[in-house]
Amino acid sequence: MLEIFFLGTSAAIPTKKRGLPCIVVRREGEIIMLDCGEGTQMKFILSGFGVNKPMKIFITHLHGDHVLGLPGLLFSMNILGRSRKLEIYGPRGIKGFIEIALKYTSGGLGYPITIVELEGEHGEIEFEEYIVKYVVTKHSVLNYAYILEEKPKPGKFNVEKALKLGLKNRRKWGLLKKGLIIKLEDGRVIRPEDVLGPPIPGIKIAYTGDGIPSDKFYEVALGSDVLIHEATYTSLLEDKAMSEYHATAKIAALTACRIKAKLLILTHISARYEKSEGKPLLEEAREIFKNTILAFDGLKITVRRRNGKFIWEEDTL
Amino acid sequence: MLEIFFLGTSAAIPTKKRGLPCIVVRREGEIIMLDCGEGTQMKFILSGFGVNKPMKIFITHLHGDHVLGLPGLLFSMNILGRSRKLEIYGPRGIKGFIEIALKYTSGGLGYPITIVELEGEHGEIEFEEYIVKYVVTKHSVLNYAYILEEKPKPGKFNVEKALKLGLKNRRKWGLLKKGLIIKLEDGRVIRPEDVLGPPIPGIKIAYTGDGIPSDKFYEVALGSDVLIHEATYTSLLEDKAMSEYHATAKIAALTACRIKAKLLILTHISARYEKSEGKPLLEEAREIFKNTILAFDGLKITVRRRNGKFIWEEDTL
Repeated sequence: MLEIFFLGTSAAIPTKKRGLPCIVVRREGEIIMLDCGEGTQMKFILSGFGVNKPMKIFITHLHGDHVLGLPGLLFSMNILGRSRKLEIYGPRGIKGFIEIALKYTSGGLGYPITIVELEGEHGEIEFEEYIVKYVVTKHSVLNYAYILEEKPKPGKFNVEKALKLGLKNRRKWGLLKKGLIIKLEDGRVIRPEDVLGPPIPGIKIAYTGDGIPSDKFYEVALGSDVLIHEATYTSLLEDKAMSEYHATAKIAALTACRIKAKLLILTHISARYEKSEGKPLLEEAREIFKNTILAFDGLKITVRRRNGKFIWEEDTL
Repeated sequence: MLEIFFLGTSAAIPTKKRGLPCIVVRREGEIIMLDCGEGTQMKFILSGFGVNKPMKIFITHLHGDHVLGLPGLLFSMNILGRSRKLEIYGPRGIKGFIEIALKYTSGGLGYPITIVELEGEHGEIEFEEYIVKYVVTKHSVLNYAYILEEKPKPGKFNVEKALKLGLKNRRKWGLLKKGLIIKLEDGRVIRPEDVLGPPIPGIKIAYTGDGIPSDKFYEVALGSDVLIHEATYTSLLEDKAMSEYHATAKIAALTACRIKAKLLILTHISARYEKSEGKPLLEEAREIFKNTILAFDGLKITVRRRNGKFIWEEDTL
């Protein structure tokens, strides 16, 4: 089960209802933040996510609207007593930006941070329970889309099968559950697949940051359960979108089809859709891809797999 | 007439009700911003101050809570079409901070900015209609208090006196109003003071930024109509305040007495007074200095002199 919180859903200029980009994914008690626009610290702290959780931050690109909340967030978590390490990933330049912002505006942090500048057109970072892949999109500056892919979980332990094989030792059950092969005293070899159901696939979430998908993005994001796609404009402003290297709602929907996503969430909404509440964007995308949601500040989406089926629930913060 | 708007009134950590420090003084169509905490751009733009007004920004010190809103504000005013020059004043380091933040997060600005790093313990900058004086306070980093002092306006033109002197030429009235000495055809010399009432004193506003006042501050801020003083804690936390070089409400009130201010506004309120709505701070200050107001986000104070008397009105944004 994963929870996705939309803290900021505007494009470059915040509006009354939409703040600058920030998404928080909460997974097994860990916070995975995607982008950190100005104002993130207020929402993050006041929403009660906790300042001392295991936490990673992924920055798609260094445009101000996606990154200017970072120094203040680091600074406030320090005052509020964070002690755990924080990991930050982003394109080249992210290290210099953070180090200099902190140098000028604070006396340093009381908790360790690791800043990793990603390299190349695409790549992946492996963590214990999931992998984060990154792929360049077509934007006016270097922008990485991130794809979070949970590793499959071991299948359900079949007690009946285990007992039939004469396995009574619970410690051995545990070893099999962990994927280890065991040898019994009578010489027989038991493999995990003998007693476990099929592996349970993890959830896969793709977030574009800004820009138009590249071929490599389609490849890496293929099979994502959730696609969080920027949709700055509708197709009526396609020329403007192309000249700024921004996506339209139509592009987002076509991408969702192409990567066979199950749910599309539109975000990074231009201020011009404030009055219409973004309806033109939602309508344009839904004509192509039915399961589309228009993000708003405070939207919470819970995603899980139940009996093999992907399901989601909408709620608010 | 001057309007003072409190956009952010928290101390280092923002709360549900209080955002990070920012004060806007509006004077004759010009915007004079004092500090620029994270989140300022949202409030500034949404409050309709306009992004292309004559504007100056004064930063008291480089702690994150007072300055991290600056890059985003500059960046958004650019997108929204500012073309007029912007002037920024602050302690040493402000230039490097802004230049590097902009370098990393945007492609430069489409309007000119001048950044002035102030020097020394105190000094003054003279503008056409007012002077801004700056004085170091006792804080953990270099912090300048700013004192805005309007130049006196010429006194009221006394038509009766002018006519008695035989002055009928309206152009000559205008010259006298501007402070010029004129010579009549009959050789007589008329001085402005012959036809003008006493000069009308301007308004004087002092803003401490963070820290405890220095002797020089008392001297320079003497006679301020309005004192905007940080009051992070009450005296119950005096030791904590002293160790952090922050003022208590009591210190703020004693300062207001000492400089003979007419109105004291407390701001930079610690998050610990959120539940009590800052009442302990207000009570502590009012015991010493009656005309005390506790700032809140959205407070607007209009100040003017009417028939020589300083008056103020409270309102909200």
